[in-house]
Amino acid sequence: MNLKTLAQELNLSFSTVSKALRDSHEISSITKNRVIAKANELNYQVNPLASSFRKQKTKTIALIIPEIVNDFFGPVINGIESIAQEKGYHVLVYLTHECMQKEIAIFKLLQSGRVDGIMLSLSERTSDTTHLKELNERGVPLILFDRISDQLDVSTVTTDNFAGGITATEHLIERGCKRIAFLGISKTLSVSTGRMNGYLEALKRNSMERRDNRIICCDGDDWENKKLIRNLLKSKDRPDGIFASVETLAISTYEVCAELGLNIPNDLKVIAFSNSYLAALLNPSLTAIRQPAYEMGREAAATLVNLVEKRVCPCHHQKTEIKSKLIVRNST
Amino acid sequence: MNLKTLAQELNLSFSTVSKALRDSHEISSITKNRVIAKANELNYQVNPLASSFRKQKTKTIALIIPEIVNDFFGPVINGIESIAQEKGYHVLVYLTHECMQKEIAIFKLLQSGRVDGIMLSLSERTSDTTHLKELNERGVPLILFDRISDQLDVSTVTTDNFAGGITATEHLIERGCKRIAFLGISKTLSVSTGRMNGYLEALKRNSMERRDNRIICCDGDDWENKKLIRNLLKSKDRPDGIFASVETLAISTYEVCAELGLNIPNDLKVIAFSNSYLAALLNPSLTAIRQPAYEMGREAAATLVNLVEKRVCPCHHQKTEIKSKLIVRNST
Repeated sequence: MNLKTLAQELNLSFSTVSKALRDSHEISSITKNRVIAKANELNYQVNPLASSFRKQKTKTIALIIPEIVNDFFGPVINGIESIAQEKGYHVLVYLTHECMQKEIAIFKLLQSGRVDGIMLSLSERTSDTTHLKELNERGVPLILFDRISDQLDVSTVTTDNFAGGITATEHLIERGCKRIAFLGISKTLSVSTGRMNGYLEALKRNSMERRDNRIICCDGDDWENKKLIRNLLKSKDRPDGIFASVETLAISTYEVCAELGLNIPNDLKVIAFSNSYLAALLNPSLTAIRQPAYEMGREAAATLVNLVEKRVCPCHHQKTEIKSKLIVRNST
Repeated sequence: MNLKTLAQELNLSFSTVSKALRDSHEISSITKNRVIAKANELNYQVNPLASSFRKQKTKTIALIIPEIVNDFFGPVINGIESIAQEKGYHVLVYLTHECMQKEIAIFKLLQSGRVDGIMLSLSERTSDTTHLKELNERGVPLILFDRISDQLDVSTVTTDNFAGGITATEHLIERGCKRIAFLGISKTLSVSTGRMNGYLEALKRNSMERRDNRIICCDGDDWENKKLIRNLLKSKDRPDGIFASVETLAISTYEVCAELGLNIPNDLKVIAFSNSYLAALLNPSLTAIRQPAYEMGREAAATLVNLVEKRVCPCHHQKTEIKSKLIVRNST
């Protein structure tokens, strides 16, 4: 079934049918409805490449994330996909594997019009955002979510890292912790610095001393991170509470505690930002600050579609923050 | 930078540059190399829509999976993406949420030439594969992986469900289990029936009786599945070993055991197909048959790209089976 046979079936000219399918103002709505009804009846599919070429719209959005084997990005993709399906968009997925060069290469691929817009969560090692600026200046709408950069003025969707950091730290204080350590994943990423600033704010509000040797940046591999945690837990004045900025660092802490014979929660209380349903099944179950990952995905996609479809001005930068939630379990 | 300015820079005609970039046989390789070098130097990007329209190739492949918040499909996507990046393909991701109607709708969307090929893992509820046949007859290459259908003659990539089922069951027998139950997820899906057939084969080889009330099909929601497991574990002749076809059913079993005061592994031994790194952190840690999810993703993508690029004949249906591995932990 092509456009020509569709026109023959309708006894209309090729050009009329083509214009009707493109919703041209030259064609009456009665004719348009007739054409659409017949196209549906005969299962005629508009060639998306031809039609995209004409309109320069691809109905495709790109999602660029650091990794996928992760408790956070799974539900994010679910949220994005639910909006994409509602609005008729296709979703391309790219992984940077926490590598800035890969992130730049993906942006270069996308410069040439393959997608209508991009949702990005920055790689851990992205120190320069020139590639984002270049693309944005070419008029391709860009949304940053979760891991954002302050160097760039675009719409963002995040969780309340600062407030969540305060909640996590004050929960440990309420449970009697006097020496609380913070495990971050990066010195620059907003998800890490925001949570750390919340931690520092909570210490200040509760007149507790800040000690720089209790603020650990775990940006190495698993082996290196565990070594840092081991040193922390073997130190003379070892912490009695740990606030891990991400779940994997809480798991590393569990492993180091098992190794050193430390009991959680008696010797050490642990809390982490986490979305995993398995957090509840760890031994002991892990107290968590739960990010609304699914809602963040939906919000990021909805914001991007609004930009793509020009329902909002590109100069309008929306900063959406979605609330996290404390879930108390046995590790505290 | 467009094609016209590129031609001016090279002092060549528009048509020569255009043909050179399309790798036309009319242009000498010396000229082609000159054009490509200059295009790279000037950061000239071919418009993919224009170029795809011409060649009717999109350099895009679709991945259709039942769900993403899952320990299996995460590493699968990682594997697919690694091949896509090597071969210069883009990956569209679609979720069926285990719904056949959604699967059909996605196939309808893809009929019209948006992608060069499709990788599919069937939804739990797909009872009819007409939509797959229709698309395949239109000449769009299709690969089934993990959850395949015997009704369709296409290339497949699976793990050794039958052999893994035997290994799992014989491991429970070696550990002294006399009354082993099997928890499946579907009466028709190959991943469930293959593992069940392995279970039955192991019982036969070890002269153990098959009891139909120990073969449970958990295809409901979490609440319904737990009810089935609870009934099984409260029965007079309750099993002393459970082989769960997927990790989530092992977790439900853990929860029901906690509720009923049954100790794993003393009262009940548990083994499951699982890829999650958290299986090791459960209490007790879960003995698993580990599927090579990443390798399956790579193999599925590589097989599809070979079909798309016509390096193999579409009539050649390759059935790839990748070996699983027993990882013994404390639950047995």
